[in-house]
Amino acid sequence: MAELIKQLETAPDGATRPLNEVLDALRYNDRGLVTAIAQDARTGEVLMLAWMNRESIERTLETGYAWYFSRSRQKLWWKGETSGHVQKLVDLCIDCDGDAILMRVEQAGSACHTYRPSCFYLRVDGDRVRVLGDAGNAG
Amino acid sequence: MAELIKQLETAPDGATRPLNEVLDALRYNDRGLVTAIAQDARTGEVLMLAWMNRESIERTLETGYAWYFSRSRQKLWWKGETSGHVQKLVDLCIDCDGDAILMRVEQAGSACHTYRPSCFYLRVDGDRVRVLGDAGNAG
Repeated sequence: MAELIKQLETAPDGATRPLNEVLDALRYNDRGLVTAIAQDARTGEVLMLAWMNRESIERTLETGYAWYFSRSRQKLWWKGETSGHVQKLVDLCIDCDGDAILMRVEQAGSACHTYRPSCFYLRVDGDRVRVLGDAGNAG
Repeated sequence: MAELIKQLETAPDGATRPLNEVLDALRYNDRGLVTAIAQDARTGEVLMLAWMNRESIERTLETGYAWYFSRSRQKLWWKGETSGHVQKLVDLCIDCDGDAILMRVEQAGSACHTYRPSCFYLRVDGDRVRVLGDAGNAG
C-alpha cells in the first residue's frame, strides 16, 4: 500500500493532506483504475459500480459531475452525456486502502442503462434470482 | 457479456432464473472475481468494497454471513472471523452486467480494519483530503 494511504489509517479525525498527493498515492490497478461506487445522496440507494482513472476523478471534482473510465471503450465517459442521466456530485470519499471511491450523487433520471433506478436489480431469492423492476427504453 | 445476464436486462419485474445458472453466468475477471459492496441495511451507509469468487458467494448465501476472497492472501475470508466484526446478510443483489455484488448486511462492530464504521473515511474537501473519524485499535 502506498505509504501516504497507510499513514492516514492512524491519522486523527479532521487531519488533512493535499488532494494531489492523495491522488498520486491511490492504488490504481494495472490498468490505472480504481473502482467507483455511486450512491444516491438522498435515499442512500447504491446505484452502480464503475471504474475511474486519475483523470476521471479530477474531471469529476472539477466539473461537479461524475466521470468514469469505460473499460469496454477505453475512454473517459461523462455519465449521462447522451442520456441526460447525469450524476451531480455531492461528495467523494476514498477507502482505507486507496483503491475504491464512493460518490454520493444526485442522480438525474435512471442510473442504469436499462432505465431501472439502480443497476443492482437482480436479487437472490432462495435458489432463484429475481428481477426487480421493469426495464424502460433498454435495447 | 454472458447471454443470461444480457437476457435479464429486458426481463419483466418478478421474473426468476435458477441461482446456479446466474452464478455460472457472472462476468468473473481473469482471477475469477467480482467486486462486492457491503452496505449497512439499517442506515444505508456504504461500509466497504471487497472481492468475491463464486465459492465465497455460495458460502455467503449458505451461511448467512459475508465471505470474501482476499486478493493479498489468495484465500477465502470470513469477514470478522478473528475480529468478531461479522456481517450478517440481509440480501444480496447482482448488477446489470453481472460483475458486481451488493450485499445489505447487519454489521457487528466496525466494517473497517481501522475500527472506523466505514472504510470510506477519506473525504475530498476542496484541494485537501480530510480524515473522518479517529482510528481505534488499528496497528
